[in-house]
Amino acid sequence: MKMSYFNVENVKYEGPKSKNPLSFKYYNKDEVIAGKPMKEHLRFAMSYWHTLAANGSDPFGLGTYVRAWDGLEGMELAKERAKAGFELMEILGMEYYCFHDVDVAPEGKTLQETLDNLDEMVDYLEKLQQETGVKLLWATSNMFSHPRFVHGAATSCNADVFAYCAAKVKKMLEVAKRLGAENYVFWGGREGYETLLNTDMGLELDNLARFLKMAVDYAEEIGFTGQFLIEPKPKEPTKHQYDFDTATVLAFLRKYNLDGYFKMNIEANHATLAGHTFQHELHTCRINDVLGSIDANQGDMLLGWDTDQFPTNIYDSTLAMYEVLKNGGIAPGGLNFDSKLRRGSFELDDLLYGYIAGMDNFAKGLLAAAKLLEENALEEYVDKRYKSYTQGIGKDIVDGKVGLKELAEYALENDQIVNESGRQELLETIVNDYIYNA
Amino acid sequence: MKMSYFNVENVKYEGPKSKNPLSFKYYNKDEVIAGKPMKEHLRFAMSYWHTLAANGSDPFGLGTYVRAWDGLEGMELAKERAKAGFELMEILGMEYYCFHDVDVAPEGKTLQETLDNLDEMVDYLEKLQQETGVKLLWATSNMFSHPRFVHGAATSCNADVFAYCAAKVKKMLEVAKRLGAENYVFWGGREGYETLLNTDMGLELDNLARFLKMAVDYAEEIGFTGQFLIEPKPKEPTKHQYDFDTATVLAFLRKYNLDGYFKMNIEANHATLAGHTFQHELHTCRINDVLGSIDANQGDMLLGWDTDQFPTNIYDSTLAMYEVLKNGGIAPGGLNFDSKLRRGSFELDDLLYGYIAGMDNFAKGLLAAAKLLEENALEEYVDKRYKSYTQGIGKDIVDGKVGLKELAEYALENDQIVNESGRQELLETIVNDYIYNA
Amino acid sequence: MKMSYFNVENVKYEGPKSKNPLSFKYYNKDEVIAGKPMKEHLRFAMSYWHTLAANGSDPFGLGTYVRAWDGLEGMELAKERAKAGFELMEILGMEYYCFHDVDVAPEGKTLQETLDNLDEMVDYLEKLQQETGVKLLWATSNMFSHPRFVHGAATSCNADVFAYCAAKVKKMLEVAKRLGAENYVFWGGREGYETLLNTDMGLELDNLARFLKMAVDYAEEIGFTGQFLIEPKPKEPTKHQYDFDTATVLAFLRKYNLDGYFKMNIEANHATLAGHTFQHELHTCRINDVLGSIDANQGDMLLGWDTDQFPTNIYDSTLAMYEVLKNGGIAPGGLNFDSKLRRGSFELDDLLYGYIAGMDNFAKGLLAAAKLLEENALEEYVDKRYKSYTQGIGKDIVDGKVGLKELAEYALENDQIVNESGRQELLETIVNDYIYNA
Amino acid sequence: MKMSYFNVENVKYEGPKSKNPLSFKYYNKDEVIAGKPMKEHLRFAMSYWHTLAANGSDPFGLGTYVRAWDGLEGMELAKERAKAGFELMEILGMEYYCFHDVDVAPEGKTLQETLDNLDEMVDYLEKLQQETGVKLLWATSNMFSHPRFVHGAATSCNADVFAYCAAKVKKMLEVAKRLGAENYVFWGGREGYETLLNTDMGLELDNLARFLKMAVDYAEEIGFTGQFLIEPKPKEPTKHQYDFDTATVLAFLRKYNLDGYFKMNIEANHATLAGHTFQHELHTCRINDVLGSIDANQGDMLLGWDTDQFPTNIYDSTLAMYEVLKNGGIAPGGLNFDSKLRRGSFELDDLLYGYIAGMDNFAKGLLAAAKLLEENALEEYVDKRYKSYTQGIGKDIVDGKVGLKELAEYALENDQIVNESGRQELLETIVNDYIYNA
Ligand SMILES: [Co+2]
Ligand SMILES: [Co+2]
Ligand SMILES: [Co+2]
Ligand SMILES: [Co+2]
Ligand SMILES: [Co+2]
Ligand SMILES: [Co+2]
Ligand SMILES: [Co+2]
Ligand SMILES: [Co+2]
Repeated sequence: MKMSYFNVENVKYEGPKSKNPLSFKYYNKDEVIAGKPMKEHLRFAMSYWHTLAANGSDPFGLGTYVRAWDGLEGMELAKERAKAGFELMEILGMEYYCFHDVDVAPEGKTLQETLDNLDEMVDYLEKLQQETGVKLLWATSNMFSHPRFVHGAATSCNADVFAYCAAKVKKMLEVAKRLGAENYVFWGGREGYETLLNTDMGLELDNLARFLKMAVDYAEEIGFTGQFLIEPKPKEPTKHQYDFDTATVLAFLRKYNLDGYFKMNIEANHATLAGHTFQHELHTCRINDVLGSIDANQGDMLLGWDTDQFPTNIYDSTLAMYEVLKNGGIAPGGLNFDSKLRRGSFELDDLLYGYIAGMDNFAKGLLAAAKLLEENALEEYVDKRYKSYTQGIGKDIVDGKVGLKELAEYALENDQIVNESGRQELLETIVNDYIYNA
Repeated sequence: MKMSYFNVENVKYEGPKSKNPLSFKYYNKDEVIAGKPMKEHLRFAMSYWHTLAANGSDPFGLGTYVRAWDGLEGMELAKERAKAGFELMEILGMEYYCFHDVDVAPEGKTLQETLDNLDEMVDYLEKLQQETGVKLLWATSNMFSHPRFVHGAATSCNADVFAYCAAKVKKMLEVAKRLGAENYVFWGGREGYETLLNTDMGLELDNLARFLKMAVDYAEEIGFTGQFLIEPKPKEPTKHQYDFDTATVLAFLRKYNLDGYFKMNIEANHATLAGHTFQHELHTCRINDVLGSIDANQGDMLLGWDTDQFPTNIYDSTLAMYEVLKNGGIAPGGLNFDSKLRRGSFELDDLLYGYIAGMDNFAKGLLAAAKLLEENALEEYVDKRYKSYTQGIGKDIVDGKVGLKELAEYALENDQIVNESGRQELLETIVNDYIYNA
Repeated sequence: MKMSYFNVENVKYEGPKSKNPLSFKYYNKDEVIAGKPMKEHLRFAMSYWHTLAANGSDPFGLGTYVRAWDGLEGMELAKERAKAGFELMEILGMEYYCFHDVDVAPEGKTLQETLDNLDEMVDYLEKLQQETGVKLLWATSNMFSHPRFVHGAATSCNADVFAYCAAKVKKMLEVAKRLGAENYVFWGGREGYETLLNTDMGLELDNLARFLKMAVDYAEEIGFTGQFLIEPKPKEPTKHQYDFDTATVLAFLRKYNLDGYFKMNIEANHATLAGHTFQHELHTCRINDVLGSIDANQGDMLLGWDTDQFPTNIYDSTLAMYEVLKNGGIAPGGLNFDSKLRRGSFELDDLLYGYIAGMDNFAKGLLAAAKLLEENALEEYVDKRYKSYTQGIGKDIVDGKVGLKELAEYALENDQIVNESGRQELLETIVNDYIYNA
Repeated sequence: MKMSYFNVENVKYEGPKSKNPLSFKYYNKDEVIAGKPMKEHLRFAMSYWHTLAANGSDPFGLGTYVRAWDGLEGMELAKERAKAGFELMEILGMEYYCFHDVDVAPEGKTLQETLDNLDEMVDYLEKLQQETGVKLLWATSNMFSHPRFVHGAATSCNADVFAYCAAKVKKMLEVAKRLGAENYVFWGGREGYETLLNTDMGLELDNLARFLKMAVDYAEEIGFTGQFLIEPKPKEPTKHQYDFDTATVLAFLRKYNLDGYFKMNIEANHATLAGHTFQHELHTCRINDVLGSIDANQGDMLLGWDTDQFPTNIYDSTLAMYEVLKNGGIAPGGLNFDSKLRRGSFELDDLLYGYIAGMDNFAKGLLAAAKLLEENALEEYVDKRYKSYTQGIGKDIVDGKVGLKELAEYALENDQIVNESGRQELLETIVNDYIYNA
C-alpha cells in the first residue's frame, strides 16, 4: 500500500533510550515474553470510529481535527478513511481493527440503502484485509447515534425500533462472519432510562434479553462462531444504563439464562465511571470466567464523563496485563484502543503519537506484569496470607464439613485471634520497583 | 413506663398548620390511606445504634452528643440505653426497632462473656417488648467494628475470624427467633478488599457464599422463619465492598444458588454512593422480587461518604413510597431510620426533631405517592408509552414468535419510525403538583 | 404577532388546583409578594441558544428536536428562530431574553461577513423588541464553539486568537448598547487548560485580565452602562477552567484590580459541578456584593457534567429566592433559564412544558422564601445563635478591642464552654413546612 | 538514642536493584541533584499525629494499630511516643517533624492544666531536638477534635470558643518560637458550615480574618519569624470548609488585606477532593508566589474522602517536584508526610515501609523532574507554543499598547487563524520516558 496520508516510515522498535518520538521504546512485537511474542499477548486493535470517523467535536464546540479526507462525502469518504486506517495499521504494525456498521459506510435514505452501502464497503474492507493481513477483532452495530434510538434500541418503548435493531444486528452478524470477526460486541449506549417516571424497566430488560437471545440464535443459524461480548458502561449517554458494570451484566445474564453465551468487553474508562478500578473489572471478569476483550483507554479521574484518552498510565497497564496473564491470555479478544485524541491534538501526526503512547504503555505494562509473575513478587505474599484455608478449620470450611454450630464451638475455644498486616504500602512499592526495572 | 429522659408528652398528629415542632404534621398513624392505616404502610423502626449508642464523633473529632446516660458503663449503661430507646419509641408512637448484637450489650473479655452479656440484655429487651408492644423489625450481628475484623469477617484471610463470625451469627439467629425478629440483616462492612495486590477475591467470595448458606441452614434447623436480607453498600468502610449494589448482590446470589433465600435491605444513602438514585435501587429490587426492607436516611450529594442524615427530602420519600405501594407493601420489612443526628445536633431533643422530621417526611411522601397512583397520574402515561408491545409486531416480540429474520423483514418494509416525546419536564412538574396538593 | 409555531393560547395563571398542563399554578406575574410584583422579583429570561438553536444532540448521538424551522438555512433560518422565540416569550409572558452573537446570526466566511450578518439580525431583533416590549437581559459573545478557540480565547497560546476575540467582544458591546442590554456576560468555556504539561498558566491569566480590562475600557468609551458579569464554571468543556467558582473569580479579580467592574452570573448546575450548592454560590456572591444575575437550571447530582435541565427542584428554587430576597433583589440581573430540554423531550410542546416547569418552580420558591423571611422563621434562630458577638467579649472581638493576649486571659478564667445544638434537622423540617404551606 | 521500638538498623541507600525492603532505592540524601543535595530539595518531615498518635480507627471500627506504647497513659504515654518518633526519624534519616499541640501532650481538666502539660512536653521535645539535630518544620494548634469546636473555632457562633482558640494559638506561637519552628500552619477543620440554614457566613469570615490578624500581630510582638501557612481543604470534616482550595484562600486573604502574611501548605489529597490535581494546586501557588510547604500523601480517586495514604504514585511526585524545582525550592517549607498507614497495615514495621515508600517515591520524582528540566524536555515545547506573545501583535497585547479597537482592526485583516496541536499524548509519553530513565 502506498503511503499517502501519514508520510512516515513504519514505526520501529528502537528501545528505551531512543529519543525518536516515532519509535517504539517498549513494544517489540516479536520479542518473546512469558512464552509468547508480545504481539500475541497484546493483540492490539485500531478503533475505526475514534481514529477515522471522529472530528474532535465536544458538546460545546465543533470538530477540530484536520484530516486529508476532510471535504469528501458518502462512499468516497468511506473508502478514503478505510485506506488511511489500513495505512495507519501498517505503519504501526497493528494486526487488528474493530468497527460499528455506521463507521465504515454512510447511512442511506432507507434501511435498504444503508445495508447496500454497508455491503459495498464490506467488499472493500475484505480486499484491504486480504492485502494487508489485518484481521477484524470485533464488529458491532451502532444503535445509539441516530435519533430513532432516542428512547433505546432493544429497550425502546417503540417496537418498531426493536425491529429496526434486529435488522441491523442480523446484517452485522453476516458481515462479522464474512470478514472473519473473532468477536461481536454489544454496547448499549441507549439501553437504559433517563427517568423512572416514564419507564417500564421490567419490560425493557425482558426485551433486552429477548434481543440478545435472538442474536445468539441467528449466529448459530448462520454459523458465526465468534465470541459474543457485552461492554458494560454506566451513566453515559443514558442517565442509567442497564449494563452499569460487570456485576450488573452478570446478574442480568444469569437471570435470563444467557450466561454461557456472553463474555465481557471491559473498557478502562467505563470501569472508573462505575466507581471501580480498571483492574477490579478485569479481575471480576476473570474469576467469573467472562474476561473476553479489552477497550484500552483512560479517563480523567477528576472529570465525570468518558474522556476515552489514549492510555499512558503505567499502573493501569501493568495491573491490566497482570490480570490478562493470570487469565491465560486475552484471545480471542484483544486490546482495542477505544481512545480518541484530545480535541487539542488535532493534527494527523497526533494519531501516531497517540497510538505509540498507548502501545508502548501496554508493552511496558506487560513487561512489568510478566516479571512480577515470573518472580512471584505478589503471589507468594498472597498465598501465605490465605494459608489458613488450606489446613485445619479453614480447610473444613472450604470443604463444606462444618456449619455454624461446629464453628461456634471452635471459636469458643479459640478466642484470641491473631491477624497479620496487609502490607499495602510495601506491596505498592514493590509494584513501583518492578515497573522501573522491567 | 415513666418518662425519665425526654420529659415531653407523646408526640401527636396536629396537622399541617401546626407550629408545634413536637407534633406530627403529616403522620397520622391510624389514618387509612390506600386501604390501610399509615402505620402499616410505613412500619417505622428505631435504629438502636445511631439513636442510643452513637456519640457524634467523626474522623476528626470526639463525640459531642450530650446524653443522660453519659458516664455509665457496662451492663448498667446498656440497660439505661434500652429504657431510653423504648421511651423514645413510646413518645413517637413507633412500633419497631432494629439492633446489632454489640449495640445492646457490651463485649466481654472472652467470646463466652460477650454471649453471656447478650443473653442478659435479651432478657431485658424481651421484657421491654412485652411491656410496650414494640416489636423487633430486624436483628443483625456487627462484624465490622472490632479490630479482629480488620481484613474481613466471612471474607477474612484468617479462618479463625470466619469461625468467630459463625459463633456470632449463630447466637444472633437464636436471639432473633426468641425476640420474634421479622427479619435478619447482613451488612458486610468489612466484606471486600482494600487493595487487589494482597487479595484472593475468588476465595473470599466463595467463603461469603459458604457463610450465608450456613446461616440459612441454621435458621432452618432452629425454626427461625424471619426474612433474610442483604444490605448493599459500596466503598465504605472497605474500599471495594462486595455487596456494592443490588445488581452486584443479585449476581452473587444467582452464582451461588442463594437467590430465593435473600431479599434486600435498601438504604437511601448507600444507593447514591453507588451512583444510583434511591428509587433506582428500590425499583430494581421490586422487578426482581427482592424488595425486603428499607433503611431510611439521606446523604449529602456533594460529599463522598455515608452521612446517614435523617431524611427530609420530599422527592426521595415520595418516590420511595411509590415503589413500596407498587410492591404491595414492604412487610415483613419496614422503614428503619438508619439515620444519625448531625454532629452539631447534640442535644437530646434533637432525637425528637430528627425522628419527627423523618416520619413526617415519609408520611407526606406516602400521601403524595398514594394520590399519584390513585389518579394514575404517571401510570396512564407509561402504559400509553409502551402500547406498541401489546399489539402487532411488538406483541410478537414479547410472545417470542419472531427472530432477527422476521423482524428484519418487517423493518425493511416499515422504514419511517415515529417516536414520541418522553415528557420528562412535564412529568417532574406533575410530581411537584401531587406533592404540594397531597 | 401571529402565532405560527406553537398554536396555543397564552399561558395563564390558573392556580394550584388547575389540571391544565399549559397553565401556571404558582406564577401569577402581577401578584404582589414582599412589596413588588412576582415578575419584578423573578425577571425571567429566555435563553436563545438552548431554546432556538439547540437540536438535542449529545456526544453519542445526533439531534432529535423536531422544529418548524428544520431545513432552513442561513439568514432565513436565523429570522424564523427569532420569530419563534419572541412568540414563545409572548405565550409565556416572559419579558427578557439573552443571547450569544452566534445564536442569532450565522457565521460568515470572513470575520467581516460574520459581523455583517450580526448587524442584519440586530436590526431584526430591535424591531421585535419594539413590537413586543421584550427586553435584552444580557448579551455575550461565543468564544468557545469554533475550532479557532481550541486552545482558548483570551487565554489562547495564539495571539491572533486573542485579537479575533477582541473584535467579537467589541462588536457585541456595541450590539449590547444598541439593544439596551442590561448586562454583559463573560463565560469562558475555553479559558483554562487541558494539561499543565503544555500550559503557561501565568501568562494566560495575565492575558485574561488584560482582555477584561480592554472590554471595560471600551464599554466606557462607547457609553455602554450595563452591568458586567462573569459566569463561573469548572471542568467543562475545558479540563480546568480558570473561572472555577465564585471564590476563584474573586481571587482573580482582586489580584488584577478588576473587582468593582464585575459581578457574577451564577448557574445552578455550575455550582454543583464545583462541589458547592447553588445556594452556597449565591450566598458567597451576596456577602461579597457581587450577586449579579442567575442562570436557572439544575443538574443531575449522579452525573458528572452539566445537564442544564429545566429546574424543577423546589428546594433549590426556595433557597435561591431566599438569597435573592436577602440581596434586595436581582436587578439589573434576572433569572435566565440556561436550561435545555432533555434529548428525549424533542417535541415543540416540550418547550412550553419546560419553561412552565421552571417558571412555576421559581414562583413557588419565591412564595416559600418570602414567607420564611416575613415570619422570620430562620432569621430569628440565626440571630440568637450569634448573639454572643453582640455583647461582652464577643463584641470586643468584633470591635477590634482585643488581641490574643487579652483573649487568652479571658479564656483561662472562662474554662467551661457551653455550646448549643445547631438544630439542622428541625430547620430542614421548617423549610419543608413553609414550602408546603406557601 | 537506644533503639528500643523498631529494632532495625538505620535505613540506607542501596540503589534501584536492591531487594531489601528496608533500604532506599532512590533516596540518597547527600547525592547532589540540580545543584544541591537531595535532602535539601525534599526536606522530609514526620507527621506526629498519624505516626505516633493515630490508632487506625475509622468511622466503622476501632483502632487496629499495635504499638509498644499501647496501655500507657497521660504524660508517660506522651514521652514514649516522642522517643519512638525521634527514633523513627533517626532510622529514616529524616530531619524534620511537625505537630499539633494535642499530639504531643494530653489535654488537662482545665485550660491551664492543658498548657502546663504542653510546657512539660516542649521541654522534652527541645531536649530530643538537641540530642538528634532534628528540627521542627512546623507547629500548629488542633482546633477541631474537641467537642467545644463543634460549631467552629475562630468561626464558631460562640465567642467563648473564639477566645479559647486565641489562648491555644498564643501558646503555640510561643512554643513555635522556642522550638525554632520554621513555619506555623492553620488548617481550619471546623472553620466552615454544616448548613446555611443556621449560618451567618459573613460574620464567620470576618471573624476568621480577625483571628488571623491577631496571630500575625502576636507573632510580631514575640519575635516569631517563621512563615505562616494556611492549608486549604474542602468538604471534610465540615460540609463546606471556608478554605476550600488555594484560589478560595487567596480571595479571602486579598479581601481582608492579609495577603503578604500567609502562604499555602498544599496537601495532595486535599487538592483532589477540591476537584483539582495536586500539580494544579502547587502551580496555582507558584504563580501567585504563595507556595509555602507540602503535605505529601495521596488519596483514592474512587473514594470521596481524605484517605491520607502514603504517596506511592510516581506521576504525582514527579509533577510535584517539577513545580518545586521551578519554584526555586520549597524552603522554609518542606515535605511533611501527612500520611497514615492503612487500617490493615497495623504492625509497627509498616511505619518503616510506609515512610520508605513515600520517601523513595519523592526521591524518584525529584530525579525525573530534575532531568525533565535539565533537558528542557517540556519547557522548550511550551516556549515555542506561546511565542506569538513575544513579538508583533502579541507583544503589543502584553505590553498594553492595544485595546479592543486596535485588535479588531488587526483581526479583520488577519482572518485565517492557524493553530497548532497541543500534543498532550506525546507530552505524556515524554514524562513516562523521563520517569523510567531517571
Ligand atoms: Co468501548
Ligand atoms: Co468509552
Ligand atoms: Co443501613
Ligand atoms: Co449508611
Ligand atoms: Co449558564
Ligand atoms: Co450550564
Ligand atoms: Co495536611
Ligand atoms: Co488530609
